[in-house]
Amino acid sequence: MTSIDKMRSACAVANGLEILGDRWTLLIIRDLMFTNRREFGHFLNAGEGISTNILSERLERLQCHGIISKQPHPDHGKKNIYELTDQGIALAPTMIELTLWALDSIQNTFAPPQVIELMKKDKEKLLQLIRQRTVLVEVPL
Amino acid sequence: MTSIDKMRSACAVANGLEILGDRWTLLIIRDLMFTNRREFGHFLNAGEGISTNILSERLERLQCHGIISKQPHPDHGKKNIYELTDQGIALAPTMIELTLWALDSIQNTFAPPQVIELMKKDKEKLLQLIRQRTVLVEVPL
Repeated sequence: MTSIDKMRSACAVANGLEILGDRWTLLIIRDLMFTNRREFGHFLNAGEGISTNILSERLERLQCHGIISKQPHPDHGKKNIYELTDQGIALAPTMIELTLWALDSIQNTFAPPQVIELMKKDKEKLLQLIRQRTVLVEVPL
Repeated sequence: MTSIDKMRSACAVANGLEILGDRWTLLIIRDLMFTNRREFGHFLNAGEGISTNILSERLERLQCHGIISKQPHPDHGKKNIYELTDQGIALAPTMIELTLWALDSIQNTFAPPQVIELMKKDKEKLLQLIRQRTVLVEVPL
């Protein structure tokens, strides 16, 4: 459980958005949930053009709220590895529903076919794979 | 289907967040989906402190993307009534999952008991009520 110091309202949606209501934050969560991106440089080069200072701030904030964890890279002393915590993994149903909405509602929107297939036909299986930290979309790093 | 002029990426999550990845936008959708707030002044006074210019810009953007519609108020010529379109209503599963996550993950987070009950025990019924444009949370306006 995370407490927020400056809570504007106790409403569940408002509180959730106080932490998550920012596209960069949710793009980092997408990378950690669906792809093999785990390092600062991976998020920076994910293609949406996040700046280094926004990325640092968002990673800090996500750790502070217990959604991601940071460990030193086993092979590179100066690098860190980021992972979703259980609380971060618990965002999977929200991310899945957002993706399904976007696929249905916005033109020229894509997701890897194997992920779409699972989202539409076996949501429970997809949730299970995400909970097991399976890399669903292997991207070049 | 909505097209976005300046799409940074075709990824479904990124595209969805290009439209929705902003807490004010999702708070307006919350008001329209769960409460009886339908007018500019209702959103302005919803308690989170949105400013008039941000509210105007977000309402314009939501209309532009086909998520809400605007009609003249039947009784007050100068006022408008906002409603979710079918594409806006289709965000219900995302909003429900976000709310459930916040209730589980953030301290001092509340939602009306009748809504929590439905979210946890009969999500299909809740989706049906939202699709029928039922006001689930009557707030003083």
